[in-house]
Amino acid sequence: MNSASNQPDHALAQALLFPQSVALYGASDDAGKTAGRPLKFLRAAGYEGKIYPVNPNRQTVQGETAYQSLAALPEVPEHVFILTPTNTVLDAVHECARLGVKVVTILASGFSESGPDGAAREQALRELSRATGVRVLGPSSLGVINPEAKLVLTANAAFAEPELPRGKVFVASHSGSMIGALVSRGKARGVGFAGLVSVGGEADLCVGEICAATLDDPGIEGYLLFLESLRHGDKLRAFAVEAAKRGKPVIAYKLGRSAAAAEMAATHTGALAGEDDIADAFLKDLGIARVCGLEALPEAFPLAKRIPLETGGAPRRRVGVVTTTGGGAAMVVDQLGIRDVVVEPASPATLAKLEAAGIAVSAGRVLDLTLAGTNYDVMKGALDIMFEAPEFDVVLAVVGSSARFQPQLAVKPIIDSAASRKPLAAMLVPDAPEALASLTAAGVPCFRSPEACADAIASEFARRVPGLQPAVGVAPAASAMPLSEAQAYAILDQLGVPHAPAVTMPLAGPAGRLPFDFPVVAKVCSEQIPHKTEVGGVVLGIQDQTQLEAALASLRHNLAERAPGKRCDEVLVQPMTRGLTEVLVGYRVDAEAGPIVMLAAGGIWAEVARDRSIRLAPVSVEVAREMITEVKALQTVSGLRGKQRGDLEALARAVSSLSQLAVKPDLRIDEAEVNPLMVLSEGQGVQAVDALVLKW
Amino acid sequence: MNSASNQPDHALAQALLFPQSVALYGASDDAGKTAGRPLKFLRAAGYEGKIYPVNPNRQTVQGETAYQSLAALPEVPEHVFILTPTNTVLDAVHECARLGVKVVTILASGFSESGPDGAAREQALRELSRATGVRVLGPSSLGVINPEAKLVLTANAAFAEPELPRGKVFVASHSGSMIGALVSRGKARGVGFAGLVSVGGEADLCVGEICAATLDDPGIEGYLLFLESLRHGDKLRAFAVEAAKRGKPVIAYKLGRSAAAAEMAATHTGALAGEDDIADAFLKDLGIARVCGLEALPEAFPLAKRIPLETGGAPRRRVGVVTTTGGGAAMVVDQLGIRDVVVEPASPATLAKLEAAGIAVSAGRVLDLTLAGTNYDVMKGALDIMFEAPEFDVVLAVVGSSARFQPQLAVKPIIDSAASRKPLAAMLVPDAPEALASLTAAGVPCFRSPEACADAIASEFARRVPGLQPAVGVAPAASAMPLSEAQAYAILDQLGVPHAPAVTMPLAGPAGRLPFDFPVVAKVCSEQIPHKTEVGGVVLGIQDQTQLEAALASLRHNLAERAPGKRCDEVLVQPMTRGLTEVLVGYRVDAEAGPIVMLAAGGIWAEVARDRSIRLAPVSVEVAREMITEVKALQTVSGLRGKQRGDLEALARAVSSLSQLAVKPDLRIDEAEVNPLMVLSEGQGVQAVDALVLKW
Repeated sequence: MNSASNQPDHALAQALLFPQSVALYGASDDAGKTAGRPLKFLRAAGYEGKIYPVNPNRQTVQGETAYQSLAALPEVPEHVFILTPTNTVLDAVHECARLGVKVVTILASGFSESGPDGAAREQALRELSRATGVRVLGPSSLGVINPEAKLVLTANAAFAEPELPRGKVFVASHSGSMIGALVSRGKARGVGFAGLVSVGGEADLCVGEICAATLDDPGIEGYLLFLESLRHGDKLRAFAVEAAKRGKPVIAYKLGRSAAAAEMAATHTGALAGEDDIADAFLKDLGIARVCGLEALPEAFPLAKRIPLETGGAPRRRVGVVTTTGGGAAMVVDQLGIRDVVVEPASPATLAKLEAAGIAVSAGRVLDLTLAGTNYDVMKGALDIMFEAPEFDVVLAVVGSSARFQPQLAVKPIIDSAASRKPLAAMLVPDAPEALASLTAAGVPCFRSPEACADAIASEFARRVPGLQPAVGVAPAASAMPLSEAQAYAILDQLGVPHAPAVTMPLAGPAGRLPFDFPVVAKVCSEQIPHKTEVGGVVLGIQDQTQLEAALASLRHNLAERAPGKRCDEVLVQPMTRGLTEVLVGYRVDAEAGPIVMLAAGGIWAEVARDRSIRLAPVSVEVAREMITEVKALQTVSGLRGKQRGDLEALARAVSSLSQLAVKPDLRIDEAEVNPLMVLSEGQGVQAVDALVLKW
Repeated sequence: MNSASNQPDHALAQALLFPQSVALYGASDDAGKTAGRPLKFLRAAGYEGKIYPVNPNRQTVQGETAYQSLAALPEVPEHVFILTPTNTVLDAVHECARLGVKVVTILASGFSESGPDGAAREQALRELSRATGVRVLGPSSLGVINPEAKLVLTANAAFAEPELPRGKVFVASHSGSMIGALVSRGKARGVGFAGLVSVGGEADLCVGEICAATLDDPGIEGYLLFLESLRHGDKLRAFAVEAAKRGKPVIAYKLGRSAAAAEMAATHTGALAGEDDIADAFLKDLGIARVCGLEALPEAFPLAKRIPLETGGAPRRRVGVVTTTGGGAAMVVDQLGIRDVVVEPASPATLAKLEAAGIAVSAGRVLDLTLAGTNYDVMKGALDIMFEAPEFDVVLAVVGSSARFQPQLAVKPIIDSAASRKPLAAMLVPDAPEALASLTAAGVPCFRSPEACADAIASEFARRVPGLQPAVGVAPAASAMPLSEAQAYAILDQLGVPHAPAVTMPLAGPAGRLPFDFPVVAKVCSEQIPHKTEVGGVVLGIQDQTQLEAALASLRHNLAERAPGKRCDEVLVQPMTRGLTEVLVGYRVDAEAGPIVMLAAGGIWAEVARDRSIRLAPVSVEVAREMITEVKALQTVSGLRGKQRGDLEALARAVSSLSQLAVKPDLRIDEAEVNPLMVLSEGQGVQAVDALVLKW
């Protein structure tokens, strides 16, 4: 993405994916060796640009003339693949920059993932790129494949295979080996690719920037991302927003759903993995469909192409299922149910139409055609009626044994419905590779397992239309400083987040008169003491003026004992407030995901049950209402079982208000945590009774 | 299972799976029709027993002599497949019984799943079977396949395929179409079967009884079950216990993890689906590995065969992962992590051995061989060292691209390790069907997706050694009657479950002196009023004798107003008790699963978060401790973050004690719910402060 214009960087796409000439720096004579593969693969693929093997130790490489240096080449190559060991890389990139090479791809590892020396090397590489304008792919990149240009510029052994299936989907992957696995897995399913890039350590070029550069390519209709982290989240965000505008779906598999894998991603690629539910919110809010299993990754695109992102209005997410096998359909319904996708039963009107058409169905959640028998007219008739039925937004056909032996019976009618006005998908219960191939060729999304089918559908339904996210400057965390509680309330006042009444008075005393009734709480108020309880800085349940005076004395005493070096002039006094329940509302600028807002169950539950909802900030009141339904603890104040209802509307407003920090960069707030926010009875509102705000 | 002797019923297995003669009642001349298929399939398979087509309307069927009736056959066939419509079935079974046929399989549907008429028909069928001894498979059974006997006695069109791969696993399925799907999916993975039975509606023969009958068959080494419910749970239990004794693993896929699918199972098969977490506990406690996805079902057996059930001692569930691809291994680690399976890093001793052997590995959770390079000696050397490493119980090899092109590099060493002393499994990242086939042929458990791999491993680790479960008579629920709270405490006393002190006094007054201090609570005490609060039958916070007298009066008044027809003579008085937290402990005889014990978070949390742990009853104190760790709410009293610790040992004892009801049939308790049970501080014990017990 050209950040000035938000337009795709065509020059980058050209040098990266459609270079007129490539140099293979350190090309090996042995085509079986890693450094020998790119030359072999490029020749085998019939790449029509110029190929320059560079190897100072040989006259020829694999029978071709070897050049002694980059400077010795007859022209400046557009793209250089550096195949030499780690310690030679920086010099080579320097030479490329000097010569005016546009893109350099680096195979070697041994950069930020390998300790302080490597990190320094990576920093030097990044500075070299910035200073000279040479764009760098890698380190640890296995290269770039572009079938359109017959460019198989990779050291990945998987590309030894002659046939490279072409398709409409572009792949960018943190893992170099996965591009090979995707190609073979796609092949097995009749799915090809418009290009594949192993991005490696993303010292310069990253997933978001590379994909963004290709957005105007008419041969690319969608994107598959294999992510180990959300590194360079800002670029990913910019790309996703533009892709959504163009209606090009983005599907991602992201590692790190478990703690162990998050830790691995760190050691494997040097990326610092964030919390997975933040990543999940990030992807969904940017309209990226996150599949949970590898199986669904190559299968999900045709479905994504047919399910438009919801642009307002009621979500259209009701799946109608028709089947020739009750047991098979039940598996899919089960898998969808686990993922909170509703399978809608047919309406009486639809059942009447089926009956009028002579199609017998069993009563129930799915249209089971077993009684009607498996044949073309029954399936085609049922599908046509379902396409007209207002209760279904997506139609899923689950086909049993006949799919393997007699595709003309129930698979053919699905293929003949490929142009249906509603999204249509198929799941085949037996192993039926030929039927899958026919469906795929016809553009019908189809699945070979109930799990992958449900995974793909659920991931589509979970993505949301990306807002035009603001570019809020991320300050280095070290420079952010806490405000005092009174200063924090001033920020809440600006945002419109209600808090309990509060007055300040000198810590030195005497205790002033209060504008509200006892009992009250008194707290030390200083930007130097963000964690008041830890220093004995809070006195609860103060019943009268005398006790208040005593409280000031004891706060002075505690501070002198437990926080001797801290400056504190004021005490903040508030009425004691009890809500029906308490929650935590937080805003922060995540290092990867950018500004996020979080609503969590209060107290120990937040930690024990990880009961929380996260979105990219800012959020509307409507989205905040959605967040409230996602926090289980809040069901206890939702009117359940005759229990008292909390003021959830006021809570939604408070969440939305706090999240507006994302569009108020002038306030220079890095992080704001209201904890606890008391939720009072319906109509009584909410009240912050403590807040911690970090400003840079 | 022959219930008298607990020995497999060989005669049943013989007639069902190895009949000398079969009659096809209602065989059609049209081999393409459902009723024509069994004859065609039996002939095509080369079945060597006698086949008698019976069709009163024809002289010949598919070129063979058609008999006019069952009575007209030259001998009594061992097994009759009834292919005629629903309304003719009962007469045909009656005739079979009269002739002395051993097993009858019924294809027709239209029984208990289809309303009152069908239910009556099924009841008649069941009584006919009981009265005459004829064993019935079905209704709605698609038949039986036994490759060993070349018996393809099925109407499932999937068996038109000539080749039927043979294997060591026996399949029993509630869904008839799934047996076809399993065969084709197994074929694609090189997995065959020792037999497949479509059990249909289980009016007589059920999954458990059929599988149990085959337990002595040396050709059968394990079982795959496709379950839509736990119908006939007692038989399933008896089978699972015997299978575990014989070391024959049982793997199940059970529908109904989501509410929608549970409802579908009911309409599809007439089974009443229970709550899924009860089913989950049932399967695990019986040593059955429950896989969550269809993908893993045909792949799980070889692994199950190699992972013995844990018989005491520390669980041996630490997986060591070795890989040629960091990204691929990370996917598997992630999927394992989601399922709470620990991937163990190599110990320093193991790393030293690898270094001594010249095998370079990256530091981290998995042994990544990328640096060492992908070749036979590296992988074989690493595997051999892992087999000796005490920190690994199971070794998993994740192979990248080379698995597809050069299996000699990293797949061959796995195959050569097939006889390893530790369980070994492989997961291949690319599409590599040939390598999968070689591994499967060598008996190495292998997987084509990270999800199926993790699913199979996690399901194996989750199963537990089945105890010798007691056969407690299940009384019809209608006959169970509630006890009064005082009577319920008497039962708790017998079991050793502590409760708060309690005295009773006449409702009529006067209020007697109490053996404990005020404040107290007074509750109406009558077996006719199980839900006291609903009739105003509880007075809390009584501070002295006068208030107690007043409380009796107000209870009298409330009962007269709100429960006029109910008899109540007594009031139960208890001290007010507050615990650190409260829980629900319940025992009941589940209609399908039998006696179970449940520990749940107290109050509204149990419903909101479904925060509970279930086991088959009875449980030891040790198992009860495990259950406590599974209830999230109890983490709040486990000493977390310096919070006060509850008496979890006393809780474990109470759970175990209550569960002993399962082995005390003389108490005739159908259900017992202690709610709430107060958990006091460590060392202070637990106290029931209410209990509802149903006796039959």
